[in-house]
Amino acid sequence: MTGAPDIRQIEDAARRLAPVLRKTWLFESERLNTHIGGRLLVKAETLQPTGSFKIRGAWNRISRLSPGELSRGVFALSSGNHGLAVAWAARQAGARRIVILMPVDAPRTKIEQTRAFGAEIIAYDRRTADRNALVAQWRNDQGLIYIPAFDDAEIIAGAATVAYETVQEAAASDIAIDLFTAPCSGGGLIAGSALALRSLSPKTEIWGVEPEAYDDTARSLSAGERVAVSASGKTICDALLSLTPGELTFTINRKSLSGIVRASDDDARVGMKAAFEEFGLVAEPSGALALGAILTGRMDVQGRTFAVVLSGRNVDLDLYRREIADTALVDPSPARLAG
Amino acid sequence: MTGAPDIRQIEDAARRLAPVLRKTWLFESERLNTHIGGRLLVKAETLQPTGSFKIRGAWNRISRLSPGELSRGVFALSSGNHGLAVAWAARQAGARRIVILMPVDAPRTKIEQTRAFGAEIIAYDRRTADRNALVAQWRNDQGLIYIPAFDDAEIIAGAATVAYETVQEAAASDIAIDLFTAPCSGGGLIAGSALALRSLSPKTEIWGVEPEAYDDTARSLSAGERVAVSASGKTICDALLSLTPGELTFTINRKSLSGIVRASDDDARVGMKAAFEEFGLVAEPSGALALGAILTGRMDVQGRTFAVVLSGRNVDLDLYRREIADTALVDPSPARLAG
Repeated sequence: MTGAPDIRQIEDAARRLAPVLRKTWLFESERLNTHIGGRLLVKAETLQPTGSFKIRGAWNRISRLSPGELSRGVFALSSGNHGLAVAWAARQAGARRIVILMPVDAPRTKIEQTRAFGAEIIAYDRRTADRNALVAQWRNDQGLIYIPAFDDAEIIAGAATVAYETVQEAAASDIAIDLFTAPCSGGGLIAGSALALRSLSPKTEIWGVEPEAYDDTARSLSAGERVAVSASGKTICDALLSLTPGELTFTINRKSLSGIVRASDDDARVGMKAAFEEFGLVAEPSGALALGAILTGRMDVQGRTFAVVLSGRNVDLDLYRREIADTALVDPSPARLAG
Repeated sequence: MTGAPDIRQIEDAARRLAPVLRKTWLFESERLNTHIGGRLLVKAETLQPTGSFKIRGAWNRISRLSPGELSRGVFALSSGNHGLAVAWAARQAGARRIVILMPVDAPRTKIEQTRAFGAEIIAYDRRTADRNALVAQWRNDQGLIYIPAFDDAEIIAGAATVAYETVQEAAASDIAIDLFTAPCSGGGLIAGSALALRSLSPKTEIWGVEPEAYDDTARSLSAGERVAVSASGKTICDALLSLTPGELTFTINRKSLSGIVRASDDDARVGMKAAFEEFGLVAEPSGALALGAILTGRMDVQGRTFAVVLSGRNVDLDLYRREIADTALVDPSPARLAG
């Protein structure tokens, strides 16, 4: 499928997810609301069984595979969260073989958990590997079904259910969402959310949040075409390292996004600490980037209602302990560096 | 009310909580199940708005106050979680004045959050203060309504809804719970849970878990009467420092409990780390004590289905970072000390 999913495909994804995944909660904190001078609803995808929103797209895609396809098996390339999700969904669906290609520098916890779901882990160097060649090799030589991380209509429709649920739960409490924001890497989460919001809440602005060093979607929007960033940038946001937007996601995002906010590692730290202190939720740096960007004032929040996706939690304990150490939480001054 | 609540009072509490609190999730981890050789369902009370199960009893009690009582105001003595819950519930109910008496060494985060809910904080020294005299003073001199932390039928009925929900959710998946366990301090959570289980799941064993240095319920059960422990014991479990069981809770617990397990600070650390790694949930040492005690082998788990309450999350970040540092998680050998 090459076209963008429509609202019926998103509703169908939501129905497909309902029997296997609980609806994640929207959290709210009075202290954070006071701090931003607006209203903040935090969609806690960290509560998912694999600790990130990626499970939605993976299940929506893999649950549609035929018995013949499942008997061949599946594979995915992933810095971690998509791989975990594919392994979980493929085992749930009964795939004969699950192969996840992960960068050698992926977080240990993501590697171990993926293996625990029964996947074979193949390491690659994300700075030098030719991803297209890797995909071709595993598809053609091994005959496995490729499950893309974001550039696929069913993956996007699955991710779209994040916004779909958010709008429905907010509406049940008569809350209109002025602005929806989420971390952006390949762009599937924000593209899917944009499609859902276009139908269900057309007045809602949609903003993606990218790490400063991996602002490929921001640059591509400016250029009017997909451009690539360097793989040498440094960031603690290991799940947001895409070098160029997806074809399909960019087609959607250039029509739908209000824009992209560039955020720093300090923003990620602030988001992680806020999730810890206000909700008792562990968040990984990438997962907390959009929350942090709101709290440090990178978006105009005054008097508005924001929905923000806390998109993942899979972080090594040592990094977690180090990064949230001394970060200012709801201090209105710019966040300080940890340590 | 001086008698133990019956199942109708527990059902009534559940109805009263339904409009204001979501049902907390039961989490399960394949890795933990494999580690214990049984099945473990973790009831995540850390997801509550005040971060602990205490909100259930506080709301069940305070939502019954008359307009006249609310216009006088309420007060409570608490090491933290009960105070937070009373402040939340009293503000929700519209109490004119909220006073929380807290030990001077209570965690900073609990003090700050309680104040953020609009409570006046009065500090006392938990080693020297005469709690009865304090209660009499605030009740008589200030005319405030006292909200006890555990020794009260409505507080116990509220706490009982933890087990009530757990059994209902498990039953919906055809799961029978062999053993229910929770941290024990004054004994309200475990007493209420015992009452709920007696009606809904009479074959379920019920075990409390106490810190080794504050094993007043264990000692009282052995002695056949309420005995006190010293206030000089050391533990990181700041929410489990009661010196003697409650009158009502002990009356219930001596009839209902299978027993008490004594657990160490290392057990608490193991529980905290498991909650972090498996579920992305922050837990405070006291809240994770029962989970940790299961994981370190203090209960016979082989082939059995356990429900365990992860009862609270309110922990200062520095302590959290320090205590979960190097603790072994699902290592079958005894847990190592942090640092």
